[in-house]
Amino acid sequence: MNNFTYSVPTTVHFGKGQISQLTDSVKLYGSRVLLVYGGGSIKKNGVYDAATALLKENNIFYVDLDGVEPNPRVETVARGAALCREHDIDVVIALGGGSSIDCAKIVCAATNYDGDPWDLIIGTGSVPETVLPLIAVLTLAATGSEMDPVAVISNMTLNRKLSIGHPALRPKVAIMDPEYTFSVPKYQTASGTADIFSHTLESFFSPVRSAYLQNQFCLAILKTCMKYGPIALEEPDNYEARANLMWASSWAINDTLKKGNEIGWSVHPLEHELSAYYDITHGVGLAILTPHWMRAVLSEETVDRFVTLATELYGFDASLPAMELADLAIDATAKFFFETLGLPSTLKEVGIDETHLEAMAHNCKARLSQGFVPLTPEQNLEIYKAAL
Amino acid sequence: MNNFTYSVPTTVHFGKGQISQLTDSVKLYGSRVLLVYGGGSIKKNGVYDAATALLKENNIFYVDLDGVEPNPRVETVARGAALCREHDIDVVIALGGGSSIDCAKIVCAATNYDGDPWDLIIGTGSVPETVLPLIAVLTLAATGSEMDPVAVISNMTLNRKLSIGHPALRPKVAIMDPEYTFSVPKYQTASGTADIFSHTLESFFSPVRSAYLQNQFCLAILKTCMKYGPIALEEPDNYEARANLMWASSWAINDTLKKGNEIGWSVHPLEHELSAYYDITHGVGLAILTPHWMRAVLSEETVDRFVTLATELYGFDASLPAMELADLAIDATAKFFFETLGLPSTLKEVGIDETHLEAMAHNCKARLSQGFVPLTPEQNLEIYKAAL
Repeated sequence: MNNFTYSVPTTVHFGKGQISQLTDSVKLYGSRVLLVYGGGSIKKNGVYDAATALLKENNIFYVDLDGVEPNPRVETVARGAALCREHDIDVVIALGGGSSIDCAKIVCAATNYDGDPWDLIIGTGSVPETVLPLIAVLTLAATGSEMDPVAVISNMTLNRKLSIGHPALRPKVAIMDPEYTFSVPKYQTASGTADIFSHTLESFFSPVRSAYLQNQFCLAILKTCMKYGPIALEEPDNYEARANLMWASSWAINDTLKKGNEIGWSVHPLEHELSAYYDITHGVGLAILTPHWMRAVLSEETVDRFVTLATELYGFDASLPAMELADLAIDATAKFFFETLGLPSTLKEVGIDETHLEAMAHNCKARLSQGFVPLTPEQNLEIYKAAL
Repeated sequence: MNNFTYSVPTTVHFGKGQISQLTDSVKLYGSRVLLVYGGGSIKKNGVYDAATALLKENNIFYVDLDGVEPNPRVETVARGAALCREHDIDVVIALGGGSSIDCAKIVCAATNYDGDPWDLIIGTGSVPETVLPLIAVLTLAATGSEMDPVAVISNMTLNRKLSIGHPALRPKVAIMDPEYTFSVPKYQTASGTADIFSHTLESFFSPVRSAYLQNQFCLAILKTCMKYGPIALEEPDNYEARANLMWASSWAINDTLKKGNEIGWSVHPLEHELSAYYDITHGVGLAILTPHWMRAVLSEETVDRFVTLATELYGFDASLPAMELADLAIDATAKFFFETLGLPSTLKEVGIDETHLEAMAHNCKARLSQGFVPLTPEQNLEIYKAAL
């Protein structure tokens, strides 16, 4: 197990009616709020009304940053930071899923940063000491942004979708009411589950074999996705399923699986390229690419990880030959994504053709060279082509 | 899944040489330190020398509270609180295992409390707002006190061993170097592993069946104990085994398994009575009692938990009848404690006879009435007798 420092100080209020914790949470940090959200879903499912009613009752000033995109744009971040400066905001509340929370994180950092917010994403500017505190009110079980220190922001002018991680970006408070996810449509429920599954799989495929506890935690989360993903699709208001998926979304990426491990993040950089060029749903891109990536990295050196998946997650007979078990694990993973969750299985189905494949394969070179198995741009291209 | 608030803000520095983080950790909170520790082990294994050398190099004042008992006494707490007041201490460092850390927690709370520290334990006094910050330097994988908000303190005059939980008691920083546990003797390694296993089993046996993710995390920790307990006994300086056990010790009780669940804490109150009367090793008492407690609570209503243990932890054939699987799970648990870990299997072996059984069975009445299965004093007595 590698050395690490673990610090996950987010306070999570989890369960039915926990929106009632919102105003006390705000008052810990101030009294002037920016509300960050995307489209109409939070107005339809009652979250927006519940939150703003509480703020009004408590005489807490708020101003809205609406229209955050599914892959949030740097221009929207800049608009939010300007609102914070204009209205002297001291707390930001994100209402929604990973897009709203990611956007809000960089708004929090950019408010007191003098340059272009994109500098923060590409690392030419530093996150300032004075990052605004963030409260995340989660309405989608997927990215885990509610409890992690990472944001992913897109710059469509440059066709770049990049992530930044910094301890100051971690939400101070997360309010997680599984009932808010009852109205999430099937496609988003499936792609959110694929996102949780994929985060966990990226942690599971680590070159560190001695982080056994963390790997067992990975299997616990993967099993939770397999048990409750299908139930949430069949019965959208099944509280047990929604609650387990929601809590799993946080644990898949809140640092617990990663610390002591070495996580290469292989499929994510490959997928970020798809979203940067085509603005597709993150979890869908991950699902399409994952089985092809698994085939690309399978070798005598890596087969042990596949065998563990095959036997401990999928329940295949441990006496089978290792390479056969690996194939079974890959097939079972594809089956989970494409049959059980019913997600698209090819890039063509989501409108992606060969046009940008070479550019994408080259763009994610740097990240992939540090992956579980280092990959060249040529190998990245092979994965994309196989996924067409 | 039940509603909950989750907040585990302890910063953990884990791995080889992490003692180097000690002085920066102290400086976050002050410059005058109380060092709390037990017997000679930390002087033999180099922890004391390493810590004090760092404090001296950085001109940090310190004074010692030594001689903390394996079941720490309230008189020792009082002595520590007096030292803190006398020397104007602003940070407490515990060096050792759960005993030193538990004692230090109540020293932190009692320093600014005007009454008898025992008031804090029995709840007739309140933990003051000004609790001193605690840094735990862990040298034993067992109680998980390094990352939890609970302390267990004994009053041998009254034959009471009681626990108190309060968020302010959670260590601010934990420094966990698995190498510090290389010199832990076999018996303590085995009983520490039994302690981790038992904490986890108490969480697993919850009346809440819908906290599936948490239950899968339980299985992850139980598997870690089963994999690495025997290795640590055979190869005391196996870093991978010591690291996994150490990190598992924290996760068994840092609130992650408990939140969303309802944990009755059944075997622990039964064991605390043994320690209160006989001062035996906590993990050993837990191991002796656990299989008998399992038999006492097995019924048609509870058999599903046993079946999950039998199939998912111990790998028995799921097609067997439920009650047969339950028996197999109990036998496998006993085998793990008494054969694999080599711990004593009867109360007589640790010097306990019938003398105080009735008093003990009565004393733990209140706690046991809220357990996984509520138990009467008569049932408690049956468990004790079966364990003789």
